Parts: sequence; structure tokens; C-alpha cells
Amino acid sequence: MDRGRLEAFSDGVFAVAITLLALNLAVAGPGHGHLLRLLGNSWPSLTAFVLSFFMIGIIWVNHHVLIRSIAVVDRTLLFLNLLLLLFVVLIPPATAIVRQYLSGGGENARVAMVLYSAVFLGLSIGFGAIFEWTLHGERRLQPLPPETHWPARLRFAGGGAVYVVAIVVALFSAIAAFILIALTAVYYIAQRTPDDSRGSGRSEETEVL
Amino acid sequence: MDRGRLEAFSDGVFAVAITLLALNLAVAGPGHGHLLRLLGNSWPSLTAFVLSFFMIGIIWVNHHVLIRSIAVVDRTLLFLNLLLLLFVVLIPPATAIVRQYLSGGGENARVAMVLYSAVFLGLSIGFGAIFEWTLHGERRLQPLPPETHWPARLRFAGGGAVYVVAIVVALFSAIAAFILIALTAVYYIAQRTPDDSRGSGRSEETEVL
Amino acid sequence: MDRGRLEAFSDGVFAVAITLLALNLAVAGPGHGHLLRLLGNSWPSLTAFVLSFFMIGIIWVNHHVLIRSIAVVDRTLLFLNLLLLLFVVLIPPATAIVRQYLSGGGENARVAMVLYSAVFLGLSIGFGAIFEWTLHGERRLQPLPPETHWPARLRFAGGGAVYVVAIVVALFSAIAAFILIALTAVYYIAQRTPDDSRGSGRSEETEVL
Amino acid sequence: MDRGRLEAFSDGVFAVAITLLALNLAVAGPGHGHLLRLLGNSWPSLTAFVLSFFMIGIIWVNHHVLIRSIAVVDRTLLFLNLLLLLFVVLIPPATAIVRQYLSGGGENARVAMVLYSAVFLGLSIGFGAIFEWTLHGERRLQPLPPETHWPARLRFAGGGAVYVVAIVVALFSAIAAFILIALTAVYYIAQRTPDDSRGSGRSEETEVL
Repeated sequence: MDRGRLEAFSDGVFAVAITLLALNLAVAGPGHGHLLRLLGNSWPSLTAFVLSFFMIGIIWVNHHVLIRSIAVVDRTLLFLNLLLLLFVVLIPPATAIVRQYLSGGGENARVAMVLYSAVFLGLSIGFGAIFEWTLHGERRLQPLPPETHWPARLRFAGGGAVYVVAIVVALFSAIAAFILIALTAVYYIAQRTPDDSRGSGRSEETEVL
Repeated sequence: MDRGRLEAFSDGVFAVAITLLALNLAVAGPGHGHLLRLLGNSWPSLTAFVLSFFMIGIIWVNHHVLIRSIAVVDRTLLFLNLLLLLFVVLIPPATAIVRQYLSGGGENARVAMVLYSAVFLGLSIGFGAIFEWTLHGERRLQPLPPETHWPARLRFAGGGAVYVVAIVVALFSAIAAFILIALTAVYYIAQRTPDDSRGSGRSEETEVL
Repeated sequence: MDRGRLEAFSDGVFAVAITLLALNLAVAGPGHGHLLRLLGNSWPSLTAFVLSFFMIGIIWVNHHVLIRSIAVVDRTLLFLNLLLLLFVVLIPPATAIVRQYLSGGGENARVAMVLYSAVFLGLSIGFGAIFEWTLHGERRLQPLPPETHWPARLRFAGGGAVYVVAIVVALFSAIAAFILIALTAVYYIAQRTPDDSRGSGRSEETEVL
Repeated sequence: MDRGRLEAFSDGVFAVAITLLALNLAVAGPGHGHLLRLLGNSWPSLTAFVLSFFMIGIIWVNHHVLIRSIAVVDRTLLFLNLLLLLFVVLIPPATAIVRQYLSGGGENARVAMVLYSAVFLGLSIGFGAIFEWTLHGERRLQPLPPETHWPARLRFAGGGAVYVVAIVVALFSAIAAFILIALTAVYYIAQRTPDDSRGSGRSEETEVL
């Protein structure tokens, strides 16, 4: 099997999910007072949109890098990829829930952020499963030496641990969990880029989300 | 004609359909009580979403395998493929109906599950029609010997028979029909994978849904 | 410029438009009586969906054939293609209007069908404009001899004339206009296929919608 | 990294965004009076749709040209491209706001047009950032001589300046700002095409939005 359709299908899902995020940004129609005030009140909505937009973007970049490292596409990979995409398509509804409940605060805001963090934990597990799959057999274009498997796994687990922490933090403060995930996004965007231009020796594919 | 645009268009439809499934998962906004309770009550919705998500995923994998076996793309194939996609795009609205009516039980739940099963029967017939088309002329990259045509057709009919059974079961119990289709999905995901890694001699393309 | 992105972008628009058609098929939720009766009442909706689905499918097939005949992609073509896609994305809202107003009959049903027919007339004009563009310069992979230009143009105009007739018919009978467009769709699907398998000498690209 | 997935993902976002524009064009259902009158009243909606449709089309064409000029794809480019796409997906909700508020006039119409103009200013900045990125290192297939960098930057800044003017104009007259952006769209469509067929010596990639 070739990687082409796996990438085309995944890119389609990423593209639809990232565009649907903006679908509910439009404010209420005329008859609800000053548009300027409506827009001013929609900043939590806009903030949640921007965070989810860049999270999907980061996931897309990481997916790109991970799939590029793969030599063979079999049915196991197709279904592991499907598991990953399940969490991708859950981002827009989870974002809608955060958008509606975060600014209200209280228990509902905390529940919304636990849910939101859990979706990214699911994504992290999906990436870890695909990465684990690539470690066995001759599935990578450039096999990783066995002694690097555990360090690579730990780096993956570290990525997932951020979302476990975010879930725990969300139980106490929704805003703190939101900021933690936002900082994670900033870290991914900022850290990757220099690595890339330095042409560092670290194998890129092991740094996915 | 080349397979490229047939696959690109189909992948686009699959990607949009699978992402739209999640569009209505978001719960009601603030003012409807505890979010935790709202989320708790949405488990039938979430279950229907997960089942339809993996069903579309399975159909995509099977479509991938079937189209890959084809040597020529003519207009008949384009329209047979269109017939198949007609049932793919019906999955999100059929899922929305199941989501709304399944947990209520009674006649409405049974009608919803008859409809849901009928969409998958339609998909099965669409796959059968494309497979039948591949058997004639020189349309396959690796022609199947004539003596394997009937066994292959029977395997296809067997796949479709599951959904006929699901329709009949749905007349008596909506939940039983739901479980039957869910077991079919699990069977497809589980059974395919070992086959694939064993590199079995059975020609893969004849095992589609 | 290469044809690849023109096709990829167009296929994306076709795929999203054809999938969005089904978005509003879901019936009202619980509390609106028997689901079986709701589904029974939705047959005009379903009929309009099926017609628009196959019309978009036919347009996609014709677009495929027309673009394949083109040797160069310049900005004029990109904008003519955009004009064509404008009418493609208008099909879902036009279908929604037909779906809502056709079964009610009266003036509103006639207005809805005039609008629906006009969208297809617009598509026909868009195809004609692209075809006209291909006739000049060295824009076709296989140039058409000049003496075939007028017959080809007339065949195109003939296609568009069906929708002019549909508009006029719609002024008197919405149902008659709907049936006329449905018969046109059946004609396109049925007629093309034998042509194709006969491998007729007629140049395929000149037969687009 | 290859350009393929960058283009595929971007094309997907463009295709979904341009098709979603038409999603809310459908008028209210039966029971709201004459359909003809409803359609007549929806012309501001239709005008805003057509303008945004062609703006996305122009942006897609320019994106096509800019990305085609690039030799290497690194993570910085992926995230700059993501920034550009952020503003692309904001076009449908911004259009929905214009559609709802423009015809009402007054302060709300002016606020709507400031917002709409600001989205295009954001796009212009996104294009400028990608262009700036291409000027450094060996990132272009055909490097621009250093003495052309500033003229090219000024041409980019000129494009963005139109939207700054549109924002200022919108503070006084929403309709005037709408017409200014519409004239910009007409200019882009009209001016590009002759350039292109003349095969002018000006490097095409530097003329993006």
C-alpha cells in the first residue's frame, strides 16, 4: 500500500476539522444590541478558537513528520491512524464546549477543560501507538537503533504527561489548564523551528506531540 | 482516465463525512444545568458517533483496497463509485437520527436502526456492484481466475447479509441491531489486521465490506 | 502552472459540496411524533438530495474530462474555473430551497425551481466559457480542427438550452421542471457510459454538460 | 520536506472555506411569505457571498503562485502558512457578520466592515511574512536579486495598504469600504490575466495579494 491515500485522507480530515472550528465564531444577528459589544464579549470564544487552530496545526505538522518516516503502510497502521483522527475530529466539538463554558467559570468550566485536555491526551496516545508500531519490523525508512527506543518512548510519554497534568490542573482551575495547554502550543511552535533550521542531528520524527 | 482524481474526490467525501459526524456532538450551552450531567446523558450520542466513525473508516480502507486493484477507470466506474459515495454521505444524517432516537427506545428507535442498517446495506450493494464491474473485461491489474468469481461474489453477498439480518433484528430490538453492527465493525478491524501481516495468499481485494 | 492543484482544489470543493447536501437531511428530533411518519414526509427532501447529488457527480465527471484535455493552466483558466465552482457551491443552498418549497406547490415552488434551474444554467455557461478558452492558442493537448469548433459550440449551447427550457417550464409547473432536470441527469449517466465503452471516435471532451 | 502535503492541506482548507461560505445562503423555510420577496431581500447576503468567494479564489491563486516559487519546506514555513490559513478560515464567519449587519447600516455596519477589512489585512500580512521568509537563505527556486527585494516588499506593503485604507474608510462608511474591497478584487482578477498572457518579464510570484 502507498502512503499517498493515507496522507490525502488524513489531510482532508485535518483541513475540514480546522475550518469547522471557525464555523460558530459568527456572533448573533441584528437585534442583539451593539455589534462592537457582541464582538468584545466573544473574546473567550476567539481565544479558544485560536488555541485549537494552532493545536490542530501542530498535530498536522507532527503527523506529516511521523508518516514521512514510515516505509510500509498496512492495515494496522490505517486503523491506528483512524484512532488518531477520531481525536482530531473531536477537537471542534470539545472547543465548542470550552467556548461556551470557560468564561462562565465554576464547575462547568473545569469539566469543559478536563474534557478538552482529555482529547489531547487521546491524540498523544494515538501518536504514541503509531510510533510504537513503527519501531517493530522494518516499518521505518531509517530504522532507529534499539538503544534509542526507550529514550524516544520516554519523550513521547513526556508529551502525553503534559495533558495528564492539564487534566489534574483543570480539576482545580479551568483557566490554569487553558494557559498550560496554550504554553505547550507556544513551546511546540517555538522550539521546533530553530531545531529545524539548525539541521540538528536529533531524529526529527521522534519529537512528535 | 487515471485513478488519481477518483481517489482524490472519494477521499475528500470520506474526510468531510467522517468529520461532519462530530459536528453535532457539542452539548447544549450554559443554562441547561451541570455540564457533567449533560455529558453523561450524551453517551448514546457518543456511542453512535464512534460506531459511525469506525464504519466510515472501514469503508475507506476497503475502498482503498478495491480501487487499488483496478487497471482502468471508465465512466461506468465513476458512476458506480458515485452510487457508493451516495450512501457514504447518508451516514452522517442516519447517525444523527440514531443519536436522537436510539436512547428513547420504542418504535422510533427501531425505525432509526432499520434506516441505519439500510444505509450500510446500500454501501454493501455499491461495493458489490464495483466488484462485479471489475470481474469483466480487463479491468483488474491482476485478473481473478473465473473459478474464483462465484466464491468471491458469495463472500460479498455474505457481507451484505449481515446488514439484512441487522434490518430484521432492528424490527424487534434496536439495541440488538446496534450491537450486531458494532460487532461487525470490531470483526472487520480485528480480522483484517492479522491477515495482512501474515501476508496470506487470499487476494485482499475480494474481502471488502 | 500545473494542473495538479487546480484539480485538487476543485475536487475539494466538489467533495465538500456533495457531502454538505446531506447535512440537512436529518429529521426533527424526538417530540415530533412517529419517526416513520417524519421519514415518510421527507421524501421530497430525499428526492431533491438524490437529484442534486447526481448532478454534482455528473458535473465532477465532466470537469474531470474537460480539465484532462487542457495542456496549459494560466490565470484566465483559474478564474474561469472559479466561476464554475461558484455555481457548484450554490447547489447545496439552491437544493435546500427546493427541498423546503417544492412540496408546498404554488408560486413559491415555481420560484424555487426557476432558481434551481438557473444555477445549472450558470454551470453550463461556466463549462462553455472554459471550453471556449481551450479552443484558442495551444491550450489543448489534442487541438480540435477549426471546422469542428462550431458543431462543438452548438453541442454545448444545446446542453445549456435544457436549463433555459427548465426555467421556462418552471414558470408554469415546478414538478415538470424538476422531472425535466431529473431526466437530463438520467440521460447524462446512461448515454455517456455506452459511448465510453464503445470507444467512439467522437472526442469525449466536447460532450460536457 | 516536500511541498505536496503543504499544498494538499492548504487546498483542503481553501476548498472547505469557500464552500462553507454558501452554507447560510438558503432563505427561511415556508411560512415566511413569498419566496420571491425573501430572495429579493437576500441580495446583500448574496453580494457579500460573491465578494468573499472571489477573494478566497484570488488568495488561493496567489498562494498557488507563491508556494510554487519555494524550493524548501521547513517548519517555519509550515507555521507561517498556518498563520495565513488562520485568516482564511476567518473569512466565512466575517462574511456572515457582514451579511447580517451591512444592510442595516449605522454603527454596526461600520464595525462589521472594519472587521471584514481587518481579516484581509491579516491575510496580507501572512503573505508578506511568507514572502519575506522566501527572500532569505536558498529558499526560492529562482532567487530574486537583492536589489529587487525592497521594490518587491513595497509592492507587498502596497497590497496591504489597501486594507488599511478600507479599515479607515469603514469607520465613516461601511458601503464605501465594501465597494473598495470589491474594486480591489476586480483589479486583481482583471490585471493578472493580461499580464499572464503577455508572458511579461515581471516575476509573477512577487505580485501576490
